[in-house]
Order: sequence, then structure tokens, then C-alpha cells
Amino acid sequence: MDGPGVTLATIRAARERIAPHVLTTPVWPSNLLREIAGVPVLMKCEQLQRTGSFKIRGAANFVMQLDAEARQRGLVAASAGNHAQGVALAGAAEGIPVTVVMPAGAPLAKVTAARGYGARVVLHGESLEEARAEAIAIGEREGMVFVPPFDDDAVIAGQGTAGLEILEQEPAVEEILVPSGGGGLLAGIAVAVKAIAPRVRVVGVQSRAMDGIRRSLAAGGVVAAPATRTIADGVAVAAPSERTFALIRAHVDDVIACPDEAIAHAMALMLERSKFVVEGAGALGVAALQSGAYRPRGRTVVVLSGGNVDINLIGSIVRRGLADAGRYQTLTIEVSDTPGELALVSRVIGEAGGNVLEVDHNREAPGMPIGVAVLELLLEVSGQAQFEAIIGALRDAGLRGVPGSSARLATVAAQRRHGI
Amino acid sequence: MDGPGVTLATIRAARERIAPHVLTTPVWPSNLLREIAGVPVLMKCEQLQRTGSFKIRGAANFVMQLDAEARQRGLVAASAGNHAQGVALAGAAEGIPVTVVMPAGAPLAKVTAARGYGARVVLHGESLEEARAEAIAIGEREGMVFVPPFDDDAVIAGQGTAGLEILEQEPAVEEILVPSGGGGLLAGIAVAVKAIAPRVRVVGVQSRAMDGIRRSLAAGGVVAAPATRTIADGVAVAAPSERTFALIRAHVDDVIACPDEAIAHAMALMLERSKFVVEGAGALGVAALQSGAYRPRGRTVVVLSGGNVDINLIGSIVRRGLADAGRYQTLTIEVSDTPGELALVSRVIGEAGGNVLEVDHNREAPGMPIGVAVLELLLEVSGQAQFEAIIGALRDAGLRGVPGSSARLATVAAQRRHGI
Repeated sequence: MDGPGVTLATIRAARERIAPHVLTTPVWPSNLLREIAGVPVLMKCEQLQRTGSFKIRGAANFVMQLDAEARQRGLVAASAGNHAQGVALAGAAEGIPVTVVMPAGAPLAKVTAARGYGARVVLHGESLEEARAEAIAIGEREGMVFVPPFDDDAVIAGQGTAGLEILEQEPAVEEILVPSGGGGLLAGIAVAVKAIAPRVRVVGVQSRAMDGIRRSLAAGGVVAAPATRTIADGVAVAAPSERTFALIRAHVDDVIACPDEAIAHAMALMLERSKFVVEGAGALGVAALQSGAYRPRGRTVVVLSGGNVDINLIGSIVRRGLADAGRYQTLTIEVSDTPGELALVSRVIGEAGGNVLEVDHNREAPGMPIGVAVLELLLEVSGQAQFEAIIGALRDAGLRGVPGSSARLATVAAQRRHGI
Repeated sequence: MDGPGVTLATIRAARERIAPHVLTTPVWPSNLLREIAGVPVLMKCEQLQRTGSFKIRGAANFVMQLDAEARQRGLVAASAGNHAQGVALAGAAEGIPVTVVMPAGAPLAKVTAARGYGARVVLHGESLEEARAEAIAIGEREGMVFVPPFDDDAVIAGQGTAGLEILEQEPAVEEILVPSGGGGLLAGIAVAVKAIAPRVRVVGVQSRAMDGIRRSLAAGGVVAAPATRTIADGVAVAAPSERTFALIRAHVDDVIACPDEAIAHAMALMLERSKFVVEGAGALGVAALQSGAYRPRGRTVVVLSGGNVDINLIGSIVRRGLADAGRYQTLTIEVSDTPGELALVSRVIGEAGGNVLEVDHNREAPGMPIGVAVLELLLEVSGQAQFEAIIGALRDAGLRGVPGSSARLATVAAQRRHGI
């Protein structure tokens, strides 16, 4: 749907248009991120948006501008998740039949959600690319309108409405961090923000595993990142389009990238400290702050772009995020083999704030003096500093603890690290 | 801290007083709960409150009314979690030293959080009762002011400020569901709401495992529920106090209770559909609606009272909640032992919306005809209706699937059901 391009006027018109179908999501303060970043940080909560992500904004703006003939033909879209739900809900709200093509491995929750909005779901292919080809083929065969996920002026303008809201809800904002894959949300927010408040910095955050926008900016033209897996599946897009790239180059101040470890840690932090379920893509801005990959100079809004993470994976994400944050540590201690030693060790560790998850108690290792036993412990701690404090507290109690363990507990710790 | 009792005036004064230390949390709509309950439902998001629960409201109102001499003496409180964090933050904000006594098994995250607010944490005893006795003993020995968790007019008035906010944020509210243990939040909200809008129904929701308020109402006087474990540890209180009971009897319309299965399911629903981390106590109102234990007659606000759940338990809560909701099913199918049969089965199940988690493929069971194999499947489905639709789709494809399986997969399913 080409037209006047993406401008403040088209974004303002989009906002009026889509108002019946979207929520003005909260901008909520985070003391945790304020402590980490050293500046006030607020979260724009698009995970609380209808369908659980910002994608409904662009989909609704596209769908609501279709003429009667196009509405008659119906809609088709390809998506592993959020865009499918956005198109499905927008179509349902406007009474237009929707077909979404998802890769065969799409999470049940996302398939169920799209069906819940009344869409026909076709499972096809292994990758999003194969699903996309099938969607275009279905569209041609059955005469439906293909709804692009980001390469479209109406879609980009719809996403930009989040930028208008941020400026109204937080007029003193100085920096905005925006998760970016194909670049639709980043381009839309940047156009809106730079038109109204050009001194506000707009920064894109990508997954390092799929950093096509960053590569394209460095190359001075659109280039694709190699397709690799990332925990941030919502931004697993190899490259921006020429359209999004041109807008990003013109309006965005910087684009950075974060590794999966930082993203998993950010998801765990959001769950534990902010009480929000945020998907990998949605946690990119938090990851940028927490990992130090980006250091804002002033009041910052982080866009949490979505919360649609497979609920079955939440447990393993938590474990992985905590392990990456140094929360699981192993410790070996020689103790006299007398009753009460384990109780003493447990008490010292507990009072220093640690949590003993597993214990191996070895009395008969080769070469060990009579009357001496070796305790190996798997601990949960709040981080490296607390782990070192525990070792100090043990020393003060006359016990010598050394980081590390023999194979078994090390394996358990590694499994936790990998979320098994 | 006795005084004029709990009145609209003391609650309004509390709101002014504690404003510097608390956030006005959002009231957010839930389409899911609207579908379930048949009336508009909104969530009062106290899990997004500072310290992750409403408890800071009462603690701040108590602490801020202390005179200089009491401030000098310092504060002591006993809590397994939320009250400790509330007192710790309120004390820190007012520059008053705080000691909190927690049972030895308190989750690391809660110990760390209280320490993070600068409190001295003493781990003592196995139960909250033992911690409480120790806190009172420490208070007497060291001359500190004991901050009660609910049996205090200032604390109750502080909790009641949530009721004022609900009426302002959602003036058309007709019913309010409030999680209840000791009854401080329920009493405070009821006093505020009934003074301003007496036609709004205020309903307490308890854990069936610890339903002291319900029992006391039935008995016409305070009686204690037997102490049993509940997933809603934040409301694991045996009985209301005479003070909270009198207010509840005078102002609350009804008190109901939900079993742990419904609470776990509600927590999983909040994670998956609303993108909120809500602790067991916090999910009581959702559980009441989802299980049908309470059927509201009009626009309803559900108070999500807190989100402080041990992050290590989130994975098992999810599995338990999903299992209780019929999400894990086993299925046995006889197939001809030819290539492609498993692919056919997988495709039919996938197209009907199911997700195959595990497969046992048995070619050599005793008594089985040559050329026939038995597939046993562990499926994730959206619920019982979808499971039956899958069996129908298999039948349409010429395959006969029977619910159930032999021991191994049944055990796996049972483990998931119990969150292992």
C-alpha cells in the first residue's frame, strides 16, 4: 500500500483510525533499571497491548484502509506469531476473513491465539520464509490481500503511533530504545518522535544473532545478516526493507545489538523484578541497559514490544537467565567428618544470603585423610559479589570453601546454565 | 497503633501521607476474563506496586505516623515476604533502621530484596509463627517498634487506599474481588468503598486451604482454620484478628474460597494471557472467576495483590497450571507399520492445533498383529475440547486414537501435572 510515505501526518491519522482496536499501554517506571542505568527509566508496555504485542497497531492501520473490494477478497499473512495475531484480530474486528500461514513448528499458543481470533491457520514449511512464500501463493491463488509485516507505509505508520503515545505520556523523555528486526516499529517511532521532538534520541536494539539493520547501516545499503537462531524470535529477520532502511537511516540516532545471553537475562529480570512476561524481542532494550551495551545520558523509555513467549519455555528461560547472571555457583569445602558440620555450613551460607540447592557429601575419596570429608555444594546466590561474600563468611567461621566442584555438580550447574 | 478506628477520613489521610512512597497502579482490562465472566473485568495491578505487592501501603502509613522517639528505636517485623519488603522500604524511605525476621526457608529472592532495601534480615524458625515470636522478642530486647502485618488501624487504613484508587480509576465498577488472608486489605478496601459507593459489592477471596475469614463469618466470631500448605503463601494466615473481622463483618458482602488447583491455573493464565507475574495470593480473584467459584453480576475489578513468586518455581507453576487445565493429554493409536504413518499422525494432530511433545513407537508388543505398530503420544492441547477435536480429526483420516497410554507416558504426564 504505497501512498504519501510515512510522515507525522500519516502517523497521526493512523492513531485516530486504529483507536477503536488498540489500547494506550502504560509507561511504567522501573527502579531496577534506574539503578542499573543511572538515569530514570520507564517501560512502554506493549506486551500489555491487545494480542500481546505492538503488531496490532500496524495491522489495524493497514486493514482499516482497505476498500470494499479488497475486504471482500480477504486477507492473508505469514508470521511465526505476533503479526499473525495482529492481522487476525484486525481482520476479525473489521469483519474480514483472515488466513495466516505459520511454520509447522509454530508454538501451540500462537496457533491457538490466531484461531481464537477466528483466523484460518495453515501450517506450512519449516521456516518463516517458506511460510511467507506459501502465504503469497495462497493469496494469488485465492485472490486475497497479502498483509506485509513491515515493508509497507501503512504498517509503519501504525507502529509509529506508539511513538506519539510515548511523547504524550512522558514529555520529558530524552532517549527511546526500540527493539528492531525488520525495522517497522523503529522506523515508525523515529519518524513520529523526530518530527515532534528532534532532540529525543531514538536508538534501535537488535539481536546480535540477526543484526541486519546494524550491518546495513555500516554497509551504507541493505545487506542481510546470516540466518541464525536467536531467543528473540520476534526480531529474527535477516534484513530491513529498502523502505524501512531509508527511514531508519534518515531518523534513527544509533542501532546496537545484544547477545542472546543478555536477552535471556533481561527476560528473567523482567519476570523477577518487574513482574512482566516479556518475550525475547521485547526484552532487547532492557538487555541493552543491563548488559551495558548502551549507556543512556538521560531519562529513557524502553519499549517492551511484546510478551508472546511460549509459556512452556518460561521455566527454562528463567534458569538460563539466572545462570548467565552468575546465580548458580558450585563450591567445594573440606570439613571434619563430625555431626553438625553440614548444619554449620548451611547456616553460614544461609545467613550470608545463599541458598543450597544440592549437596554431595564425600567421605571416601582416594587420598583423603581419615576424619575429613568433602562437601560439594550447588548454590543459588544473587550474583558474583554475594558468592564471594559467602566464601568470606565461611572463612570467618573457620571453613575453607573453593569455587568449583567435581563433575556431577558441575554438570548440573551447566544444565541449569543451558536451561535444561 | 490504636486511634480513631478505620474510617474514610483515616484512609484519605493515609493516601495523602503515603503518596511519596507508593505508585498509583494501573487498572487494566482483560478480554480473557471478560469472556470467562460474561461481564467487563479489569485488574488492579498491585503486583506492579513498589516492592511487588500492596503491603507497602499499610507499612508506609504505619511508619510515617511514628514519633521521633519511636523512629529512634527502629522497627522490627516478621514476614515470609511481602510485609517484610514493605516495612523495609518504608523504613528506608523514612531513614529508620529495620530488622525483619523471616523463617529459615524464606526464598532467596525475598531475603535479597529486603536486604536490598537496607534491612537487617534475621532468619529464624521454620514457620511464620516462630519468626513472629522471635521478632517480638527481638523488639522487646532491643527496644524496637513491632510493625504488625494486618492487626492495626494504620496498616488497614493504608491498604484501604487501594480502594480509593479503584473508585477513581473505574467509577463504573460494580464488584471488587479482594484476596484475603489476615483481612487487612479486604477490610481497608471495604471501609473505603462502602463509605463512598455503598452499592459496589466487595467480595473477599481466600485460599480454601486457609479460609479463616470464611470460617469466622460462618461461626459468628473469630475461629482459626487448620494450618495447611497453600500455593497462595501470601494469604497463609489461620485467622483474621478481632479488628479485621469486625470490619469485614460490617462492610464486606461475601467471602468465598478457591482450591490450590484453581489458583495455579489462574497464575498460569495470568502469565500466558495477561503477561503478568502474579503470586498465588495475587491470583485469587482470577481463580474465583475462572473456576466459576464466583459469578459477578456486573463490571468487576479484580485486585491482583502481589507478584512476589519465587522465580525458580515459575516453570513448575506453569506446568501444574496447564496440567490442571487439561493441557497435557496422552493418546494411543494403532497404525500400520509403514513409512509415513508417523508423519501422517503428526500432520493431522498439528492441523487440529495439537502439539506432540513425546512419542513412544512400539512395534513388538505381545499379541500385536504383524505389520501393526502402536504409537503412544504425549500431547499439549488447549484443553479438553481441542483434545476431542483431535481424536475426531484422526478418525476422519482413518486413524483410531484412544485417550490414555501405557505406564511410561502416563508417568510423564503425571509428573507434568505435579510440576516436576
